[in-house]
Amino acid sequence: MRNIIIASTSTIHGSGYLDYIKADLEVFFEKVSTILFIPYARPSGISHDDYTEIARLAFSKINKKVIGLHTFENPIKAIEEAEAIFVGGGNTFVLINQLHKHHLIVPLKETVLNGTPYLGTSAGSNICGLNIKTTNDMPIVYPSSFSALALVPFNINPHYLDPDTKSKHKGETRETRIKEFHNFNNQPVIGLREGSWLHVKGDSIVLRGDLTARIFEYNKTPYEVESATELKHLK
Amino acid sequence: MRNIIIASTSTIHGSGYLDYIKADLEVFFEKVSTILFIPYARPSGISHDDYTEIARLAFSKINKKVIGLHTFENPIKAIEEAEAIFVGGGNTFVLINQLHKHHLIVPLKETVLNGTPYLGTSAGSNICGLNIKTTNDMPIVYPSSFSALALVPFNINPHYLDPDTKSKHKGETRETRIKEFHNFNNQPVIGLREGSWLHVKGDSIVLRGDLTARIFEYNKTPYEVESATELKHLK
Repeated sequence: MRNIIIASTSTIHGSGYLDYIKADLEVFFEKVSTILFIPYARPSGISHDDYTEIARLAFSKINKKVIGLHTFENPIKAIEEAEAIFVGGGNTFVLINQLHKHHLIVPLKETVLNGTPYLGTSAGSNICGLNIKTTNDMPIVYPSSFSALALVPFNINPHYLDPDTKSKHKGETRETRIKEFHNFNNQPVIGLREGSWLHVKGDSIVLRGDLTARIFEYNKTPYEVESATELKHLK
Repeated sequence: MRNIIIASTSTIHGSGYLDYIKADLEVFFEKVSTILFIPYARPSGISHDDYTEIARLAFSKINKKVIGLHTFENPIKAIEEAEAIFVGGGNTFVLINQLHKHHLIVPLKETVLNGTPYLGTSAGSNICGLNIKTTNDMPIVYPSSFSALALVPFNINPHYLDPDTKSKHKGETRETRIKEFHNFNNQPVIGLREGSWLHVKGDSIVLRGDLTARIFEYNKTPYEVESATELKHLK
């Protein structure tokens, strides 16, 4: 039975790492003493050790241990035997490249579908979708595939941003980009604003946090859904 | 002898398609009567025909004919025989995917290195670099390679945007993204602001337009260069 938190971001403006979601994580990880951290996305190119230290510090506040996947000789076994898994943000291309390279996509997917609690933030949420084709990140490495974990039957756009109507910049808005995605792909995309997350529990997929989320379905006008909306019908 | 304009954008705020650079294009295309347009990047998913019509209208103002590459049965021959080439903006992944799929990278590169004038805007400028790893676009299709035309020995970041110091958004800034690029790649990146372009003529590469450009070299602090700066040493 799936038990997954797919969070737009690790950090919201004016608060510390994972602070905005700490109370919910305490409940989510209630029965867990040690969390396996996957530091592959390396935000700003930080080392696996340094990134794991950031996660360790955050989870020490709710009395959880954190161990980095990079410290295991057998990462597949580490995933299969984990009590819980956290995949942090950074660069989605770097993350998916490492997961494919080390043949971790299938073990990670099967472990999470079997019920191991999974927390993803940003890039770690992106990979919960069917593929990484709706990431905002720069393609700084060429992965062997854009396919992702497909833990949910749609795609995620984390850090969703509304168009800035005052902007004089002519680069595409996020909405324009997702519309372009739908010229070549037909799965739904959930634009998750910073501070929002999806809680996937068994068959249920519910929007959490204070904000609405923007849903982009193929050949439909995009629309907003309120917090607490059940989204299990989306596919 | 290379004769290339690598422009950040087709359009700047408050003016029409290619208007800001029209006077320079008149000189650049002085000896050309017909321009071959490559519409593959399809901004907002627009059709090849509709996109070519936009280019045709813009160039009719300076009395140039425009023909879309998609209308030729033999696109390689069309490129080799073109008087001049214009590659418009849109989605860089879609553009490079089409170029690789139709085996056009080598013919296009050789034709331009042999002196056929080339104008690129946005995605059409991105592909002038070594690869597309510094595009801002969403990876909506998976191309067989990120390699690009390598008409210049560095990478381009078009639509370069300075960090918004007032923003409460926690997504990465452009500068952060390019720094992440340099954790995995070592070629320089030129951040071209909207309204700037590079004019490559033979061995010379000069910044044009009113604005400065931001240069990111591996293991160096990023710095600004003024308009009219010679950049041929960058590699």
